[in-house]
Amino acid sequence: MKTLGSILLDAKQNASLQAQLCAQMKQMIQHGELRASQRLPSSRDLAIQLNVSRNTVVAAYEMLVSEGYLETAARSGVFVGRATSAFQSNPPQSVARTARIPDEPQRHPGFRAPVPFRPSQPDVRLFPIKIWNRHRARVLKQEANILHYQSVYSSGLDSLRKAIAGYLRDSRGVRCDWREIAITSGSQQALFLVAHLLINPNGRVYMEDPGYLGARMAWKQAGARIVPIPVDCEGLVLPAADARPVSLIYVTPSRQFPLGTCMSLGRRLELLRCAENLETWIVEDDYDSEFRYNSPPLPSLQNLDENRRVVYVGSFSKILFPALRLGYVVLPPQLVDRFAAIKHVADDHGPLVDQATLTAFMESGAFYTHLRRCRRHYAERQQCFLAEMRKYDLPFEFPITDGGMNLAGLLPAGADDCRWSRLFAQQALDISPLSRYAIEDGRRGMLFGFTAFEPKAIRTGIAKLARVMNA
Amino acid sequence: MKTLGSILLDAKQNASLQAQLCAQMKQMIQHGELRASQRLPSSRDLAIQLNVSRNTVVAAYEMLVSEGYLETAARSGVFVGRATSAFQSNPPQSVARTARIPDEPQRHPGFRAPVPFRPSQPDVRLFPIKIWNRHRARVLKQEANILHYQSVYSSGLDSLRKAIAGYLRDSRGVRCDWREIAITSGSQQALFLVAHLLINPNGRVYMEDPGYLGARMAWKQAGARIVPIPVDCEGLVLPAADARPVSLIYVTPSRQFPLGTCMSLGRRLELLRCAENLETWIVEDDYDSEFRYNSPPLPSLQNLDENRRVVYVGSFSKILFPALRLGYVVLPPQLVDRFAAIKHVADDHGPLVDQATLTAFMESGAFYTHLRRCRRHYAERQQCFLAEMRKYDLPFEFPITDGGMNLAGLLPAGADDCRWSRLFAQQALDISPLSRYAIEDGRRGMLFGFTAFEPKAIRTGIAKLARVMNA
Repeated sequence: MKTLGSILLDAKQNASLQAQLCAQMKQMIQHGELRASQRLPSSRDLAIQLNVSRNTVVAAYEMLVSEGYLETAARSGVFVGRATSAFQSNPPQSVARTARIPDEPQRHPGFRAPVPFRPSQPDVRLFPIKIWNRHRARVLKQEANILHYQSVYSSGLDSLRKAIAGYLRDSRGVRCDWREIAITSGSQQALFLVAHLLINPNGRVYMEDPGYLGARMAWKQAGARIVPIPVDCEGLVLPAADARPVSLIYVTPSRQFPLGTCMSLGRRLELLRCAENLETWIVEDDYDSEFRYNSPPLPSLQNLDENRRVVYVGSFSKILFPALRLGYVVLPPQLVDRFAAIKHVADDHGPLVDQATLTAFMESGAFYTHLRRCRRHYAERQQCFLAEMRKYDLPFEFPITDGGMNLAGLLPAGADDCRWSRLFAQQALDISPLSRYAIEDGRRGMLFGFTAFEPKAIRTGIAKLARVMNA
Repeated sequence: MKTLGSILLDAKQNASLQAQLCAQMKQMIQHGELRASQRLPSSRDLAIQLNVSRNTVVAAYEMLVSEGYLETAARSGVFVGRATSAFQSNPPQSVARTARIPDEPQRHPGFRAPVPFRPSQPDVRLFPIKIWNRHRARVLKQEANILHYQSVYSSGLDSLRKAIAGYLRDSRGVRCDWREIAITSGSQQALFLVAHLLINPNGRVYMEDPGYLGARMAWKQAGARIVPIPVDCEGLVLPAADARPVSLIYVTPSRQFPLGTCMSLGRRLELLRCAENLETWIVEDDYDSEFRYNSPPLPSLQNLDENRRVVYVGSFSKILFPALRLGYVVLPPQLVDRFAAIKHVADDHGPLVDQATLTAFMESGAFYTHLRRCRRHYAERQQCFLAEMRKYDLPFEFPITDGGMNLAGLLPAGADDCRWSRLFAQQALDISPLSRYAIEDGRRGMLFGFTAFEPKAIRTGIAKLARVMNA
């Protein structure tokens, strides 16, 4: 009779002694240390061995019997269950179990702030988290039922959709009924789900080149073939007439990512006509049109579109804080129901407390105050960035400087921007090469985000960068 | 010359006078009220008309010129831009704009609590929201950088994944490395993404019949053909040998949804062998094994599996509160990288503040205290439910009563459970018919959730139900 000597119970653990005993005996049975039909010590003997009460052992035995791990036979005691013989024909692969993921050095990255000049990062220190938390506390107090599952809100809280409809109408000239808005987990989820709705297998997607990687990933994941379309000083160059069908055209007209070009009105109207002729959809990603420093945001493509072919995608990550993960999509009426259906399957509604807090934050006006504050700081930082850049003899050209969160600094043709990026990284500078966003486009340069960094950090960063480039 | 009399500026609006003027002029151009090449009043005249400063009009004109809406000609004034003629060939369809979604009666559903006997709903009144908020406040204080975008955490915070690994090991016998865990937006997102990883177009999925609708939707959305597999008193009946490939087998072994059957040990081992023979994956949805009232939770299939074919899915919605939308998936090593890649595209990481708060909540032990409290209340409510049911002469049979959040009450063969459900709904009772979950299965009955309702509500609910059935 096995003494079960390898069992070790610890009264300080969260799990009860009985649960520990069960777990360890199962482990021994599964690993063949106890074999089918093997006889076990009586509950009295095992209790003495393990220095626990007999009731603990009796309860554990009963539970293991109920699960089939053990069996009892009248007057002859307790045995390992016969069904467990299946374990023996399927011996544990302990190597596979213990070393199945290569041991990486233990990293504890914690939470990091971006380093200069990571693009598209808001300065979260400007965010009025105390005001936000006050709204959140009020929501929790007034809406006790908000913690329950709310099946009607797959597309987001009605109140938030209404607040967003008002904001989009006033700030971006987006015309929509609030029921055409769906709340998503960041704009990335909107792109991902739109890709699944609109892209047929092997479908083609026209996309700005260079362009936004998050969108490119979404189209590719849905099986699309990306057709790169060049970008000139008026924005996306209209694709030549082509009989083959296109699943969608992806553009960032307010501020082309990463170059910063604003699509001209003429080009916008042509693009809408082009989409109409191709019978395709336009996905308009308005990722940072909020931040224009000399004039209000430009009107959206969605606003100009009379044929309801534009899917408008936006995000609060860059206005509030990225960890919030709230974005939205404004859908043409024909897609509203289909999007709601896929959203319901994809993850149903997002975290409702955050959504209700954002509603209160917008309705109170704190949202607009925060936006103005960010605009003021970011405008100052952009001026600071450009002024500092001028102090050094550097080969960058900044053709577009009228807003946004980033500045594309072009380098002379043939420059190896990836190499520069690596050299900058050695100095703890996080500066993306433009070629990272390109498919065929030949422009070389660096993309500088300036919004998350105070003037002092901008000055230090540019000084470091100049030392690298002038070395 | 047009007087632009329809323009109305309001100093009390959030948008500046200049922005309002721009927006309204654009609207007029788009809608053909101002036509290409038409001459506009001078900035001085318009300022007087509108009773605003001349600077406001000058700035608005300049902006509209920069966007192509207007043009200037030396010494002859300001005109509507020629590019805008495109609007005229594409006149606004104001009908489509205004009435495109049928007007539903204005509903303001607000936030609702579930009514008896909606299945699988926790009682959120038991949730210690104050303790949760204290942890959240501490997280925000100690981790200022948490508000930033954290690209390394697509699969969730490391600290939360470690806390979950410990919890799953102690409470459910799930053996895994924390790096095999990914955090998802509810278990629904886990099912949705797993479907996209594992199901080929027209792939077949073996699924319990009756079974969980959220899972069925996920498989169907990914293009799968559902093969219904019957459930007997030992759980899923193993499918007969069949040469055709299967993308995955979906099971709820701890507590079959909706019947409540616990899969026997023998059946579990056979199922694992079957998956091995079919070279397919098992998706184990362990949606409420936490709530067993007479014994610790059963060990998982994942625990028994030596071939790493089990994808284990779980959720915090039913333990903490549904609106939190946090779930997780434990992946076999072969799928870890592929899941991380699709999660990154799908929505990157979820809301990090909630994840960090949950980590602190688990590490502090408050999580386990809450679980014990729920278990105590739910056990009492289950007893109350069954005791009340016995008081009335009702045709229900409750074969499985050893835990969970729901009780399946079987009706005699041929009963019209959908009709009963409708009749109950007229009395504000939310009781699902079993046939709602069935594909071919012929069992009829009702699924009663009891966990979200205090004994008093249970008594009132059953009295109402009895009145309906005995009418």
